[in-house]
Amino acid sequence: MDDIKFMKKAIKLSIENIKNGGGPFGAVIVKDGKIIATGVNRVTAHTDPTAHAEVNAIRKASKKLGTFDLAGCEIYSSCEPCPMCLGAIYWAHCDKLYYGNTKTDAKNIGFDDSFIYDEIDLTAEKRQLKTYQLLPEEAIEAFKDWTNTEDKVKY
Amino acid sequence: MDDIKFMKKAIKLSIENIKNGGGPFGAVIVKDGKIIATGVNRVTAHTDPTAHAEVNAIRKASKKLGTFDLAGCEIYSSCEPCPMCLGAIYWAHCDKLYYGNTKTDAKNIGFDDSFIYDEIDLTAEKRQLKTYQLLPEEAIEAFKDWTNTEDKVKY
Repeated sequence: MDDIKFMKKAIKLSIENIKNGGGPFGAVIVKDGKIIATGVNRVTAHTDPTAHAEVNAIRKASKKLGTFDLAGCEIYSSCEPCPMCLGAIYWAHCDKLYYGNTKTDAKNIGFDDSFIYDEIDLTAEKRQLKTYQLLPEEAIEAFKDWTNTEDKVKY
Repeated sequence: MDDIKFMKKAIKLSIENIKNGGGPFGAVIVKDGKIIATGVNRVTAHTDPTAHAEVNAIRKASKKLGTFDLAGCEIYSSCEPCPMCLGAIYWAHCDKLYYGNTKTDAKNIGFDDSFIYDEIDLTAEKRQLKTYQLLPEEAIEAFKDWTNTEDKVKY
């Protein structure tokens, strides 16, 4: 079965990445039965907190296909995506998500995935991240300009 | 007040970005009372679905400071962050978040932020994104290796 083959590849990447100074996460993006991009966690290696396996794979796939829309693609991740990566998967419009480890497994080895899911569920006032709204009456001007712009690229 | 000044800058970036072929979003990261990085939405311009204003600002700030840990920093975003960006803010450990427009404002001009928040709240089986777990017994090997690795950089 091809889905097993692709998940094995994502898992292999996750294991190899530890030896390469990265976190234990790998991802593979597939289109029309072929791998078009892979990604591994390079947060510490590249000093980039957004450099998770899925985000990296999505960026590579988008660059390769020349589009920000990955409809028709499937993503295989060695671990259930964190909220950042799950958000990225939605923005990319991937068709399907396959994962191996769970966010609870990630929590058990010291990663914050589960904590961030809990925080996102709360209203802003109840989150540990102190959050304040400022100048909404000025900020909305950008959205009015956007609405009035005719030749924009929607996504 | 400095917080007003920084939010005005984020809003200004969001408005200017429309003219530069981007979405109506801007962000500013501040440390010790000074702007250390800015970001705007370049999703369509760079064909990168992860290139939101906050993610771009976090990447730049991390590169500039040479660390994946932005504790001590505040982020000002012209719009309430989507789940991807909010996740990135948590991973970066920013101290505070200031925003202008809300996710409902974003929904009203055609952006998916609110939809993605709704989806993340659901269990995987109920999401529109088809999601399947595969090979957990193989995937967990990476996490065992991680646990057994002594000289790893935690984050």
